[in-house]
Amino acid sequence: MVRKEVSRTDIQKRAEEILIGLHVPAQDAACVLDVIMDAEISGVESHGLMRLKPYADRIRQKIINPEPDIRTTVNGASAHIDGGNGLGQVAMTQAVKVSLQLAKEYGIGAVTVCRSNHFGTAAYYANMMAKAGCIGLAASMAGPTMAPFGGMDLLLGTNPFAIAFPGETDIFCGDMATSATAKGKIRIYEKKEQSIPLGWALDKDGNDTTDPGEAINGILLPMGGHKGYALAMAVDAVCALLSGACLSCESASVFSSAQPANTGHFVAAVDIAHFLPEEEFRIRAQRWFDRLKASRPRSGFRIMIPGEPEAKKRTVAGETISILSETLDMIEDYHQKYAVKKVS
Amino acid sequence: MVRKEVSRTDIQKRAEEILIGLHVPAQDAACVLDVIMDAEISGVESHGLMRLKPYADRIRQKIINPEPDIRTTVNGASAHIDGGNGLGQVAMTQAVKVSLQLAKEYGIGAVTVCRSNHFGTAAYYANMMAKAGCIGLAASMAGPTMAPFGGMDLLLGTNPFAIAFPGETDIFCGDMATSATAKGKIRIYEKKEQSIPLGWALDKDGNDTTDPGEAINGILLPMGGHKGYALAMAVDAVCALLSGACLSCESASVFSSAQPANTGHFVAAVDIAHFLPEEEFRIRAQRWFDRLKASRPRSGFRIMIPGEPEAKKRTVAGETISILSETLDMIEDYHQKYAVKKVS
Repeated sequence: MVRKEVSRTDIQKRAEEILIGLHVPAQDAACVLDVIMDAEISGVESHGLMRLKPYADRIRQKIINPEPDIRTTVNGASAHIDGGNGLGQVAMTQAVKVSLQLAKEYGIGAVTVCRSNHFGTAAYYANMMAKAGCIGLAASMAGPTMAPFGGMDLLLGTNPFAIAFPGETDIFCGDMATSATAKGKIRIYEKKEQSIPLGWALDKDGNDTTDPGEAINGILLPMGGHKGYALAMAVDAVCALLSGACLSCESASVFSSAQPANTGHFVAAVDIAHFLPEEEFRIRAQRWFDRLKASRPRSGFRIMIPGEPEAKKRTVAGETISILSETLDMIEDYHQKYAVKKVS
Repeated sequence: MVRKEVSRTDIQKRAEEILIGLHVPAQDAACVLDVIMDAEISGVESHGLMRLKPYADRIRQKIINPEPDIRTTVNGASAHIDGGNGLGQVAMTQAVKVSLQLAKEYGIGAVTVCRSNHFGTAAYYANMMAKAGCIGLAASMAGPTMAPFGGMDLLLGTNPFAIAFPGETDIFCGDMATSATAKGKIRIYEKKEQSIPLGWALDKDGNDTTDPGEAINGILLPMGGHKGYALAMAVDAVCALLSGACLSCESASVFSSAQPANTGHFVAAVDIAHFLPEEEFRIRAQRWFDRLKASRPRSGFRIMIPGEPEAKKRTVAGETISILSETLDMIEDYHQKYAVKKVS
């Protein structure tokens, strides 16, 4: 795949201008691009700038509302947000803010979100909470790509979630899909003409497969069998049953559907300072991280803390970044068609 | 393994009398046996009556305090419990009660527990919360038996957690260790003289192994590689860093150590009725369960809801149950030595 070097500030500005041209308020466009650029520079390209295309397309098709009426209802230490069918990043950022306010007041806060859309990476939101001195959990249901344990019908999503908490220098951030692997990873095997391991996916008829092409058109399997199945259901429960959003099995692909997605999310923040001095927590966490990192690695491995590889990439990313040339072409094209220049 | 049929009421009574004879208050002994018998009749024998021996031994060795001073400090919707180095089931049952009270008042409640001991199955506590109309999460750190992802030092525990929520007839309860498998399961392979799959464990020198004997004396691997590693660390963070209990890597085996364990637990309950009418949630959950169960199974599988196999065993368990004869012998022996007859 051909890549091109671009100015990070410039590409972010151009991407924002596309959204603004499609009637997304400037503040919301900046919020969406914050989430997108974080993924792009931390090596999670699948959730980076390439996502702008389906977002823009769905706004133009009037499936996503660029100017949503987002409504927050607080009830004790819990809250519910109706995302007004707007961009997921905007509703979810609001959910994190509310969750942090509740956690600072009550020790813990939980927020559900319904009538939302694709929110980007769960890690972004969990990291926001960790930076604010909390243990953060962020989750989203997703369209049906996975079978229940022992089944072969597409009834569950990859239903990703992330958990984060702060050390002194490192931030722990475990971000995972509940499927054995992501379709993006299977596509890499396909390009390299390699077999995938058994247990990742079934073909469309429900047979075990090691053929990446059959897997992509087939059925993802849960991570760890019955464990990933239970986790995917738990994510669906808090993101959809509790919020009034669609369950994975009731929803359609964010790329192809012509209906509003009614995507659901869930956020919970635990305020560390309600339990012990935050500094004490951070110091003990960092010592623990350092002990794990200094322990004996297996041959060919380096022991890292979850979230550390992405954090390292974020740190070294400069003003010039490399993006897929097809992503750049899409941004140039959409900018020409839709952008409104920002007044700086 | 030889098994014997016993009266469920009778064996529970005898087990309680052993604890009472060791100065455990009658109410606490009943609490511990509730958790133990639930595991025994739901097919989780590893957490059933056989656990009475290490509990009794550790009380006699003064490593567990039979009459702990359990202290609860509430702070908003969060609380902290000092288990007073008593039996884990007693502190954890208190934690669930406090968490439910907080959830009913604030929508969500979170409770940490330190200075506790082995609490039995996480499922028992998660089910308690589901029966009370909540989405419940229960977790515990555990002694070091697992390596970090890419490592070979014993620095993490199986760190189990359970999540439960109610349908109309079924209760969803996903209860899992964060290791690829349990040592108990590897022992079954050893007895059958079968190889274990690659990815379950390493030998004591950190090499991949399919030999169950080497795996038992070796190192467990996290489920799903980096994912189970992140989950195990997240459990350690909420159960130990947040509570002041030992991290897995600071703790010793509950069977062999001569020190108080300072085990830590974490409980969170989300009150469904703070988000939508509980009945509406239950009905939608049950329709979803039914849809999953009615979907197409793969050959040789039956699709069930997490927790359903255990619930079915609980339902059919009668007054006569079958237990391992060595467990029965232990109970007879300990009853003779330590029991005080309960005044009925």
